[in-house]
Amino acid sequence: MDCRLRPDESHGGEGLTAARRLDGTACAAQIRSEIAPRIAAFIQRHGRPPGLGVVLAGEHPASEIYVRNKIKTVAAAGCYAELFRLSAGATLDEALALVTRLNAREDVDGILVQSPLPEGMGPGAEQRVFDALDPTKDVDGFHPYNVGRLVQRRPTLVACTPLGCMELLEREKIPLRGRHAVVIGRSDIVGKPMALLLLHQDATVTICHSRTADLPAMARTADVLVAAIGRPGFVTRDFVKPGATVIDVGINTLTTQAEVFRCFPEGSRKRAHFAEKGSVLAGDVHPGVEEVAGALTPVPGGVGPLTIAMVLRNTVTAAENRVS
Amino acid sequence: MDCRLRPDESHGGEGLTAARRLDGTACAAQIRSEIAPRIAAFIQRHGRPPGLGVVLAGEHPASEIYVRNKIKTVAAAGCYAELFRLSAGATLDEALALVTRLNAREDVDGILVQSPLPEGMGPGAEQRVFDALDPTKDVDGFHPYNVGRLVQRRPTLVACTPLGCMELLEREKIPLRGRHAVVIGRSDIVGKPMALLLLHQDATVTICHSRTADLPAMARTADVLVAAIGRPGFVTRDFVKPGATVIDVGINTLTTQAEVFRCFPEGSRKRAHFAEKGSVLAGDVHPGVEEVAGALTPVPGGVGPLTIAMVLRNTVTAAENRVS
Repeated sequence: MDCRLRPDESHGGEGLTAARRLDGTACAAQIRSEIAPRIAAFIQRHGRPPGLGVVLAGEHPASEIYVRNKIKTVAAAGCYAELFRLSAGATLDEALALVTRLNAREDVDGILVQSPLPEGMGPGAEQRVFDALDPTKDVDGFHPYNVGRLVQRRPTLVACTPLGCMELLEREKIPLRGRHAVVIGRSDIVGKPMALLLLHQDATVTICHSRTADLPAMARTADVLVAAIGRPGFVTRDFVKPGATVIDVGINTLTTQAEVFRCFPEGSRKRAHFAEKGSVLAGDVHPGVEEVAGALTPVPGGVGPLTIAMVLRNTVTAAENRVS
Repeated sequence: MDCRLRPDESHGGEGLTAARRLDGTACAAQIRSEIAPRIAAFIQRHGRPPGLGVVLAGEHPASEIYVRNKIKTVAAAGCYAELFRLSAGATLDEALALVTRLNAREDVDGILVQSPLPEGMGPGAEQRVFDALDPTKDVDGFHPYNVGRLVQRRPTLVACTPLGCMELLEREKIPLRGRHAVVIGRSDIVGKPMALLLLHQDATVTICHSRTADLPAMARTADVLVAAIGRPGFVTRDFVKPGATVIDVGINTLTTQAEVFRCFPEGSRKRAHFAEKGSVLAGDVHPGVEEVAGALTPVPGGVGPLTIAMVLRNTVTAAENRVS
């Protein structure tokens, strides 16, 4: 008997049934093209483009890249996007004062404060800054008022990463109603809003985390598995029910050979990339999952572009809401 | 072999291992006794008691009972509690105007708007009234700002029923960390805040609802099962893993013999009570679960008294927060 003919066993083999690749880059491009007429209409009606103010404090290499990508995408779409820098030694009061100024600016519809803030601002500084945002400008959806409205399933600005994951699931026609969705990770910025959004689409939702007993077994009950842990290659094939949809939210930069070798098999392009560049991106999902999952988001090119597309969409939505 | 010696099989028998009864009435009395010195200290320091304003619109028999019990408990503890009635024909604007007056009153620390509001106030009236509450006086925890702070695990006023359930679980020393908690029901007032509170105690949490596939099987994976559906006797023994803790949030009034006969076995005191009074209370959990569960809240005398104790505690907390 040729086991290659039995797809239900193929996860024991090597690459016999590769998971469908959920192309976040293409999906994000589609979303941007849908937003374009809204931006044009806004400009025509109000004589100015929707505006985004991005606050970046200190020097954090990953933050620089994120912020640059967000500003580039928002500006390329025809919005106004401005970076507001604070030094690494800036105080919490200076950050709050900047937010107050941006709250008052008529041409700034959305405000995004890039995490993390410098440690010198003290513990809890980020939430205090998010609290200070005008909720109507809170394009990251981190203000408690917006979080509460999300829980209550009311129109609001929702955190960009989980919102982007939902867009991808919907556009890729992954069924959610009555399906079991398992979210690994319970952060305020991904895990919890993700669970709420899935619940609102009538999934049965389980939130797992570091204290979950037998996490692989729980994850294996999922029809849709969302990995948002921030640990490279953490979700291995034993976490995944054959045919499940796996959304990999992790964007981890690997800089040691040991990590790269653990996460990527011999002959992998990622190993070659690391050898050449000295670092490589890895998701929270181990590549071996490709052979078990029915569909999977790549890293990079999966959730990342959708997060940025949602920054753009939330900015336009905030602008439309503010003038209406 | 005498199967009565095998507790793991006892759920096939009749009453061989009755679930431990989680006594909400006793737990609520304990909580009230712990709050008493806080009330005395508040009065001594501020020359007035913590105050609760309760808004009741229209005539709804169950609401009358709930409101009476809440006011009685809060007043008996030494707080000030006042009922503000609106007629069944009152408009939404009248309800909002009343809330505005109560927001401004210095002697009112907590405001509770009893649901449901009259249909004539229009769809969404309740949430509009909750939104109008000063969040610092929102003892029901229904304002989106408070809901968001709950999600973010920050100090806030939390919905009384799930908060009461958590108090009971903690005082009865039911382990939660790493355990699987399944919440059936996803309402804003019970299901969702309950799931968040369990998550914050490090449980792995699943939210089930009317669209969940094979609900009994999912419920049977729970170490702690919370039933908040509002359907009498819905959770039968096939929903319950032997030894699980079951929290019954349902308070359903049965008024037909067919319902009573479906929910309660022959010879049950509930049947006798119904024959005498014409109605009887039933939880969402079928009495047969007693023979499977490890611990179970009764109805009445389980979650109900704890909800009311939490109204009292939230009122005192709101008062303390407002003056500090």
